[in-house]
Amino acid sequence: MSIGRNDLDALRDAQRAFAAERDWDQFHTPKNLAAALAVEAAELLEPFQWLTAEQSAALTPEQLAAVREEMADVLLYLVRLADKLDVDLIAAAHEKMARNALKYPVERSKSNARKYDSA
Amino acid sequence: MSIGRNDLDALRDAQRAFAAERDWDQFHTPKNLAAALAVEAAELLEPFQWLTAEQSAALTPEQLAAVREEMADVLLYLVRLADKLDVDLIAAAHEKMARNALKYPVERSKSNARKYDSA
Amino acid sequence: MSIGRNDLDALRDAQRAFAAERDWDQFHTPKNLAAALAVEAAELLEPFQWLTAEQSAALTPEQLAAVREEMADVLLYLVRLADKLDVDLIAAAHEKMARNALKYPVERSKSNARKYDSA
Amino acid sequence: MSIGRNDLDALRDAQRAFAAERDWDQFHTPKNLAAALAVEAAELLEPFQWLTAEQSAALTPEQLAAVREEMADVLLYLVRLADKLDVDLIAAAHEKMARNALKYPVERSKSNARKYDSA
Repeated sequence: MSIGRNDLDALRDAQRAFAAERDWDQFHTPKNLAAALAVEAAELLEPFQWLTAEQSAALTPEQLAAVREEMADVLLYLVRLADKLDVDLIAAAHEKMARNALKYPVERSKSNARKYDSA
Repeated sequence: MSIGRNDLDALRDAQRAFAAERDWDQFHTPKNLAAALAVEAAELLEPFQWLTAEQSAALTPEQLAAVREEMADVLLYLVRLADKLDVDLIAAAHEKMARNALKYPVERSKSNARKYDSA
Repeated sequence: MSIGRNDLDALRDAQRAFAAERDWDQFHTPKNLAAALAVEAAELLEPFQWLTAEQSAALTPEQLAAVREEMADVLLYLVRLADKLDVDLIAAAHEKMARNALKYPVERSKSNARKYDSA
Repeated sequence: MSIGRNDLDALRDAQRAFAAERDWDQFHTPKNLAAALAVEAAELLEPFQWLTAEQSAALTPEQLAAVREEMADVLLYLVRLADKLDVDLIAAAHEKMARNALKYPVERSKSNARKYDSA
C-alpha cells in the first residue's frame, strides 16, 4: 500500500475503472446504487434468517464463504456510492461513533438492550 | 495512524472497545448484526425512494448529511460483523472484483444493462 | 368464497397446515418471519434496481412473472407473521390509511413530493 | 363487504382515490413502490433486530402497535404495486404455495431447517 492511499481508495479506483471500461456509469445513479446496496444487504441476511443466534456464530465453511461474498458486495456498493456522492466513509464512521458515544453513555447503557428499542 | 494498520482495523478496534464498555457483545450475534445492517441499508435507501435519478445525483446539503450518516451506519455494522466472523473485508472485496471481471467481460458487457437482469 | 371468510384468512389457514405438516413452526418466530419478509421484499426490488422509471412500468412477461412470484412471497410471509402476532392486516391497513389522510391533507400535499422527504 | 369484492380490492380502490386526490401517481412508478416496500419491510424488521426469539414472541403492547403499523405499510405498498402491475395477489400467493408444496415434500422437509439453506 503506497503512502497516503488507503484501502478504500484503492477499491474506489478499481471500481471506477471497472465501470468506465463497461460504460456502466449510466446505471450507477445514487438512487440505483442505494437500491443495489439494500438488495445485497438483504442477501447477506438471507443465510441467517432461520438460524438460531448460536448457529449464526458457528457457520459452516460453505455458509461463511457465501456470507463473505455478500459482505464484499455490500462494501463494493457502499464504496461506489460514496464515490458518487463524494463522501469520506472513514471520516463519516468516526463522526457517527462520536455521536453514539454521546447518545449511549456507558453508565446508562450497560447491558441494556432497552437502548435499542428507541434507536 | 500507525504503520501497518489500516482504516478499517481502526474502526474495528474502536467498535470493540465501544461494545465492551457497554457489555453489548451479548446482542452482537452475527444474525442480529446482519439484520441491523439490512435495516440501515434500507434507511439509506429511504431518502432516495421517491427521487428521480437526476434528483438523486443533486441532493441538498441536508439530504446529503442524512445519507452520509446512514452510510456510516452501514459501514460500522459491516465492520462489526466482519470482526465477529473473522472476515477480511478488503481481501473479500478484491476477490469479488476479480470474479466480476470474469463474469462480465468488457466486450459483452459494454453499455449493457441486460447483464444486471441475470445477476 | 364462502360467507364470512376472506381471502387472507384462507391463505393463513393454508399456511398453518403447510407449516404444521412439516413441523416448521419452530422456525417461524416473529423475528425470523420479519427477517424473511425483509429478504423477500429486497428480492422484489432486485429486478427493478437498474431500470429507469419508464422501464419499470413496462416489464417483459418474464420480468413480470418473476416480480409476481416475489410479491406472492412477501404476502405469504406477511400473512404468516400476522397470524403469529394475531394482527388483523385489513383493519390495520384501513387504520393506517385514516392516519395518512390526516397527515397528508389534500390541499397541502397536492403534487408535492416534499412530503415524502420527512415521512 | 359487498358481493364479489374482496378486502384487497377495497384497499386498492381506497389507495387509488387517495393518490389521485393528491396527484401522487407521478411518484408511484413500480420501481419506486418496490423501493418503498423494501424500506417498510426493513422498518418492520427493526423492532425485532436485537430481540431473542423468545422476546420476539412476547412483544409489549407498544412494540406490537408499532409492528402492526409497519405491517400495514407493507400491505398498502404491496397492494398499490399489484394495482400498478395488474397482479392478482391472492392468485399469485396460492400458486406460490402450490409450487412450495412440490418443492418441499412433507417426508423430506419434516423438521428440517436444511431446506431453508438452499431456498
